[in-house]
Amino acid sequence: MLLSTRLTDTLGIRHPIISAPMAFAAGGKLAAAVSTAGALGLIGGGYGDAGWLQAEWKNAGNAPVGCGFITWALKKQPHLLDLALDHNPRAIFLSFGDPAAFAASIKSRGAKLICQVQTRRDAERAIDCGADIVVAQGSEAGGHGESRGTLTLVPEVADLIAAKSPSTLLCAAGGIADGRGLAAALALGADGVLVGSRLWASHEANVGPRMHAAALAVTGDETIRSQVMDLARKLDWPQRYTARVIRNAFIVKWHGREAALAEVADDEAAKYRKAWGEGDPEGSNTFVGEGVGLIHGIEPAAAIIARMVDEAAGRLGAASRSVRPE
Amino acid sequence: MLLSTRLTDTLGIRHPIISAPMAFAAGGKLAAAVSTAGALGLIGGGYGDAGWLQAEWKNAGNAPVGCGFITWALKKQPHLLDLALDHNPRAIFLSFGDPAAFAASIKSRGAKLICQVQTRRDAERAIDCGADIVVAQGSEAGGHGESRGTLTLVPEVADLIAAKSPSTLLCAAGGIADGRGLAAALALGADGVLVGSRLWASHEANVGPRMHAAALAVTGDETIRSQVMDLARKLDWPQRYTARVIRNAFIVKWHGREAALAEVADDEAAKYRKAWGEGDPEGSNTFVGEGVGLIHGIEPAAAIIARMVDEAAGRLGAASRSVRPE
Repeated sequence: MLLSTRLTDTLGIRHPIISAPMAFAAGGKLAAAVSTAGALGLIGGGYGDAGWLQAEWKNAGNAPVGCGFITWALKKQPHLLDLALDHNPRAIFLSFGDPAAFAASIKSRGAKLICQVQTRRDAERAIDCGADIVVAQGSEAGGHGESRGTLTLVPEVADLIAAKSPSTLLCAAGGIADGRGLAAALALGADGVLVGSRLWASHEANVGPRMHAAALAVTGDETIRSQVMDLARKLDWPQRYTARVIRNAFIVKWHGREAALAEVADDEAAKYRKAWGEGDPEGSNTFVGEGVGLIHGIEPAAAIIARMVDEAAGRLGAASRSVRPE
Repeated sequence: MLLSTRLTDTLGIRHPIISAPMAFAAGGKLAAAVSTAGALGLIGGGYGDAGWLQAEWKNAGNAPVGCGFITWALKKQPHLLDLALDHNPRAIFLSFGDPAAFAASIKSRGAKLICQVQTRRDAERAIDCGADIVVAQGSEAGGHGESRGTLTLVPEVADLIAAKSPSTLLCAAGGIADGRGLAAALALGADGVLVGSRLWASHEANVGPRMHAAALAVTGDETIRSQVMDLARKLDWPQRYTARVIRNAFIVKWHGREAALAEVADDEAAKYRKAWGEGDPEGSNTFVGEGVGLIHGIEPAAAIIARMVDEAAGRLGAASRSVRPE
């Protein structure tokens, strides 16, 4: 089955799904696999490394993909946007900061501007900046985000869009790991979804086997939002953002002891980076969302997307059959 | 339109909606209005006050309602369960504690056992205790709860139920304030929903006009989970639970300064109770969830329920029309 929405029409794709531009995990291989499967794949530009970005654009081959950036990090290296735009991306995705500085150049190059937001307030700003697609990201999401839940943020932003800019599209993000989440997002008024963790758990993601194994071993109860990984990595994340990860030895040691961690951040940064390089899920972190409890295998991205759409279509059909005339 | 689900069949009600047994706000008048409108209304037994409970059962008249308790508080006054059971409740709702001590007596009296849970782990416990209905409550909810989001908790508990006890029913709670939320909950695999804040904002709720006005003035960005109101009220809430309220002067003053608050809790408790008694939304708290951003008026409970069902039916119909054969 197919799900046709304003998102599939506007982007000229088969499935109303965009892959999250997850830092490190979402390389060209994953983005290309997602786009080839009929959705829109995004390379994760992350904190900004020109060499990595060039290599990943090469890995994407000729697949029609886009690229995402951490907005506050891009402000330190704005030339990376030009690097991405030179590859004729289908879309540029910005999250975690004011998109105003980059909106005009993105749109002038024919790329769709996707702005991910975590609050209604920031959705209003994204609309004012001319976002073609607003992604409303709830706290369930893996990696960085904030505290609002997907289930309320999506309809509230849908109402805002309806009032201010009805042609702007809306995607739901955070906790969408199967066809039920996709079906729910459409019922809430979204035109499509952004999928992170479920595609992180794919063959094509840049994720090591120990990280994948750690994710398959836990339920959704075992994740937590924290800032200790950013303190340990000495990354300049604005205070409002936390990252959702699996609660592990590193989290148990430091979460709630942020001041103590800051004092030994140099030592911890070295240890953390070593553990990360080794793919160690206890000494560094496994960045997945609450949807991890719905993930039971590492599969090809195309299989994940096809099943998600089929399941969503089935769920919407079943739920609509519960409707009866009075 | 009607939505027929396993919940409507099992409870013999018209709409797959249960009203949350909100402490203080959900008296007999609200519960009766909800049941008369074709859903299931619950009186909020809260922290346990026999006189209040008897009065509210009287206010419910002959409407077929149920009653909810805060499980850890009921353990201190277990006779209150008998008081409720003597009114032949349709259901007894337990949340925030192990339901084992009360399950057998509830079921032996012919009342349905509804167990609200905030984690997958507790859902497993509720099933083991013989819950007829498990309510999976996400962090979006107003009042007490925990950190997991509704969008992932519901399908994860649905999978657990399918594996362990397929005849157990499932309701979604947290952030469901309109027909979109109800439609999404059904798409996620729930048999119905529990509605709190939206019915708190009704004519029949025991809520003063200044509290209602405070809720209508904010978006969903303006709520927060905290423990300071429980410290100030000197209530023995287990550490794992927080309460979602509107971020107000009281929260700005004390949130993050819990140790300092504990030192002056006697004084603050007196001030808080005075402000609460006066319905003061700055000196005490407005207990609503993130769905407050979807609430734009104080209305009769029956109108809220009818619109929610109509909107959900419409949304499911519209979303299922996006399904196309390949």
